[in-house]
Amino acid sequence: MIENTSCTNIVIAGIGGSGIAGRIFQGLYTQKPVLLVEEYLMPDFVNRDTLVIAMSYSGNTEETLSAVQDAKRKHAHVVTITSGGKISSLGDQNIIIPQKGMQPRSAIGYQLMPLLLSFGISSEQDAKNARTILDGLDKDHTECTKHASNIFSGSKIPVVYGSAPFQGVPYRWKMQIGETAKVAIFANNFPSLSHTDVMGLGKGYNKDIFYYFVLEPESARIKKRMEIMAKLTKTDFNLIRPKGKSTAEKLFYYIHYGDYIAYDLAKLRSMDPQNVDLIEQIKAELARTDPKGLP
Amino acid sequence: MIENTSCTNIVIAGIGGSGIAGRIFQGLYTQKPVLLVEEYLMPDFVNRDTLVIAMSYSGNTEETLSAVQDAKRKHAHVVTITSGGKISSLGDQNIIIPQKGMQPRSAIGYQLMPLLLSFGISSEQDAKNARTILDGLDKDHTECTKHASNIFSGSKIPVVYGSAPFQGVPYRWKMQIGETAKVAIFANNFPSLSHTDVMGLGKGYNKDIFYYFVLEPESARIKKRMEIMAKLTKTDFNLIRPKGKSTAEKLFYYIHYGDYIAYDLAKLRSMDPQNVDLIEQIKAELARTDPKGLP
Repeated sequence: MIENTSCTNIVIAGIGGSGIAGRIFQGLYTQKPVLLVEEYLMPDFVNRDTLVIAMSYSGNTEETLSAVQDAKRKHAHVVTITSGGKISSLGDQNIIIPQKGMQPRSAIGYQLMPLLLSFGISSEQDAKNARTILDGLDKDHTECTKHASNIFSGSKIPVVYGSAPFQGVPYRWKMQIGETAKVAIFANNFPSLSHTDVMGLGKGYNKDIFYYFVLEPESARIKKRMEIMAKLTKTDFNLIRPKGKSTAEKLFYYIHYGDYIAYDLAKLRSMDPQNVDLIEQIKAELARTDPKGLP
Repeated sequence: MIENTSCTNIVIAGIGGSGIAGRIFQGLYTQKPVLLVEEYLMPDFVNRDTLVIAMSYSGNTEETLSAVQDAKRKHAHVVTITSGGKISSLGDQNIIIPQKGMQPRSAIGYQLMPLLLSFGISSEQDAKNARTILDGLDKDHTECTKHASNIFSGSKIPVVYGSAPFQGVPYRWKMQIGETAKVAIFANNFPSLSHTDVMGLGKGYNKDIFYYFVLEPESARIKKRMEIMAKLTKTDFNLIRPKGKSTAEKLFYYIHYGDYIAYDLAKLRSMDPQNVDLIEQIKAELARTDPKGLP
């Protein structure tokens, strides 16, 4: 459990596979301001009243390591969630992920659960119930396979829309489908769709190339917006309905659903789901340059 | 000028054309936590120590009006920036935009300047210098015309990347190119590109359909990342370099540059830049439904 939750505000540092848990948490927790940091430095407001939670599966992510050092300079209370590496000894509290050698994005359960449990969003029982729902999806995910097949056969570009409190989930799908299946994909939140995206959707070119997912809005009003949008722009939104009642059940169902689309799509494309060679090459090239120039 | 800036945290409510100023401000101001609200309700942490700035050009945007009412229930200090409408009398302070009948997205100067000046991000002199730079772009924007022409002739989908402190600007471009030219477009921030987007960029299909813009990173390290990315994935990033020295100069240059691309693209597509009929139809249809169901 995360200690020192009696802070004034919360900053979650993390990027890529390790940044998604923070983004999802930001939508779910509204009792205190939660800010995300994907860059090298902390915002200026960070001080001893700030709880900084730093996520890096490897523990050596360049941006996150730099952000943790900056947080310590600013006297924030720092909690790290990591499998090891340099940041694992830098926090006031270090939560160690027991399983080594995973892809960072596979560690999402280890990264999310401390947040959900420590801040009262989910109970242990919710987590158990979620596990049962995921087992069901493991047994039957033909819907996911069908979506993957539609995307593959049409060489489609997926676009995923979410809304509160699950507005972070599309970014999980983006990462999974991007890294696992190696397919370009975009994420957005739904209310903004009906304000800024609608003209391009209704009158743009290349519309047939996109494959739209909408996570079922919790708000009846936003759901109404979605239906009007679909009709006016003649767009086929694939509505994804969660299973379960609790936040944890719905959340992990959505996550796992996207995972299966990504995995099935990788198989169809004959891509190794684990391989992220380009990301590793970028890191290797960066490591060869002078890190003294870090901000 | 915005009063009561001695708050603990800041929430900016606004959506669509009126939401962009808040998003841009969030990147530029790091002295206090700044949260954005695009939904109907305020986050739970909002109280009398919160400064809520509500942007709605019309003053009648459904989500923003609902969010303002919720902010008042929570005893926040509310400042509205609007040309009139219902919210114009609801704030503890109401800043009235003098020019009526514009598209909300054309009012960005009126929405941004109170934020930039009140929070010490820019001076009046910076704003004057920015004006001079914009005049230069008005006289010569052949670069923007060339980008519009490339996008049009290839039926391309623009993707715009920014990084701190200008990570909000791509969302301005998204809105302008979407609403003015009626072209689907996506926005993202750059550091995350080299972590989550790279596999799709390097090994995805349909890559030729995208037209990539990158606002020049202020951080030398992120610029290095960008160069490595471009080389590894064989991607042609169109790097946009700002003019001027101050934040205001660079910011308004970026904004105006995107405006010209949007305008030129609208002309090439024979689209009326002002027309946003689908957005108006959604609002009209929503108004016909029972608003009592609002959250």
